[in-house]
Amino acid sequence: MKKIVLLRHGESIWNKENRFTGWTDVDLTPKGVEEARNAGRVLRDNGFIFDIAYTSVLKRAIRTLWISLDEMDLMWLPIHNTWRLNERHYGALQGLNKAETAVQYGDEQVLTWRRSYDTRPPELSIDDERYPGSDVRYKQLSHSELPRTECLKDTVARFLPYWKKIIAPQVQSGKNIIITAHGNSLRALIKYLDNISDQDILNCNIPTGIPLIYELDDHLIPVRNYYLGEQSLIQEAMQKVANQGKSTG
Amino acid sequence: MKKIVLLRHGESIWNKENRFTGWTDVDLTPKGVEEARNAGRVLRDNGFIFDIAYTSVLKRAIRTLWISLDEMDLMWLPIHNTWRLNERHYGALQGLNKAETAVQYGDEQVLTWRRSYDTRPPELSIDDERYPGSDVRYKQLSHSELPRTECLKDTVARFLPYWKKIIAPQVQSGKNIIITAHGNSLRALIKYLDNISDQDILNCNIPTGIPLIYELDDHLIPVRNYYLGEQSLIQEAMQKVANQGKSTG
Repeated sequence: MKKIVLLRHGESIWNKENRFTGWTDVDLTPKGVEEARNAGRVLRDNGFIFDIAYTSVLKRAIRTLWISLDEMDLMWLPIHNTWRLNERHYGALQGLNKAETAVQYGDEQVLTWRRSYDTRPPELSIDDERYPGSDVRYKQLSHSELPRTECLKDTVARFLPYWKKIIAPQVQSGKNIIITAHGNSLRALIKYLDNISDQDILNCNIPTGIPLIYELDDHLIPVRNYYLGEQSLIQEAMQKVANQGKSTG
Repeated sequence: MKKIVLLRHGESIWNKENRFTGWTDVDLTPKGVEEARNAGRVLRDNGFIFDIAYTSVLKRAIRTLWISLDEMDLMWLPIHNTWRLNERHYGALQGLNKAETAVQYGDEQVLTWRRSYDTRPPELSIDDERYPGSDVRYKQLSHSELPRTECLKDTVARFLPYWKKIIAPQVQSGKNIIITAHGNSLRALIKYLDNISDQDILNCNIPTGIPLIYELDDHLIPVRNYYLGEQSLIQEAMQKVANQGKSTG
């Protein structure tokens, strides 16, 4: 039986300010730090041990991983950072307040960008300071790899090659893996593993800071999955993320 | 002109308690955390940017690296952890208070273990709980690679292959490298780069938390080296480390 652990980063400053974040490199709030600490603690208390960690190149995910590894006394673990685990790129909406965006573009349009599998938000121009091509951490990426906006379908398309080429072979070989990432990059993986439809994946809301355990058979087909932790904490986190899903602002 | 940055971890709990540490995984003191933060700040303020970081599998070095990368806003940097950058293994002396050890074995013997290039302290037995073979982070190491004690010569011998095979080619190819490690693993590198004699390397004391910059020519021969930071801080750190060198306790 193979096992992987998925962990969505804790609350970030822009989660709290209700702004579209995407690839913007915002940090955790003190609450997000606490969520990361709890995640590490519950993994440690349940005897989880890892061989390799994967995360994005965004500090809210990296810090979540660092804090939880620290709690597990696993700071020495090899960590692989990849832009392919980044959050969905939110194009020209990045940085905008969600409520203001609804006023500007209309509720229905914003709902479509947030709840459609293949509709992209307006794209960034190349001379926009938010364009990732001007950030040194993306200097190895080709022009066609650098996103100017993404729908969830795009996020899936750029994450899956990394899963197939890099992570899956490690899981296959028996390595214990933790992936600390973002709502949409984790959705991309879950969609693939559980073979979820383009429509249904949009209703899949992963709570922050609660380890999600996937048990896989030898062909990496999921046998079961479950959240790890106190039931009351899990329920609270699920409710919170479901409410976020309802709001268009 | 190639450039590498060496950084010795900040003050650890056992530095402060005056105990032989070696491969024991003790954490930084609050002062050590502050030293790491200062190191990151001075590197950032001097415009240093990196492509890859190397460190040991011991948390006092890893935390020093994490904190300084955080200060530089470079948390996304690829980090490679290797046991070959660990501190010199101090054998059966690990955990002992240096003053008590001097009482037990005599000043002269302790001085020899600390100040001789090729005299090993008493070795650990394989069933000692301090033996690294029982630590999961060393499970990939062969029996002959697992140290039971080390003299500085041994530390040099196990670090140099990593420098030659892994780090040097990256420096050669133009990558900007930071190495955050320990007093003796950094001595191993400096001995090699500067071609320092077995005797003279023992007088080379690297202060904690002060970035040491090596500028190298295209054959990786050092052109010059210097410490980065406020002169008063550097002087203070040099004085501290020189005094440690004098004490046999």
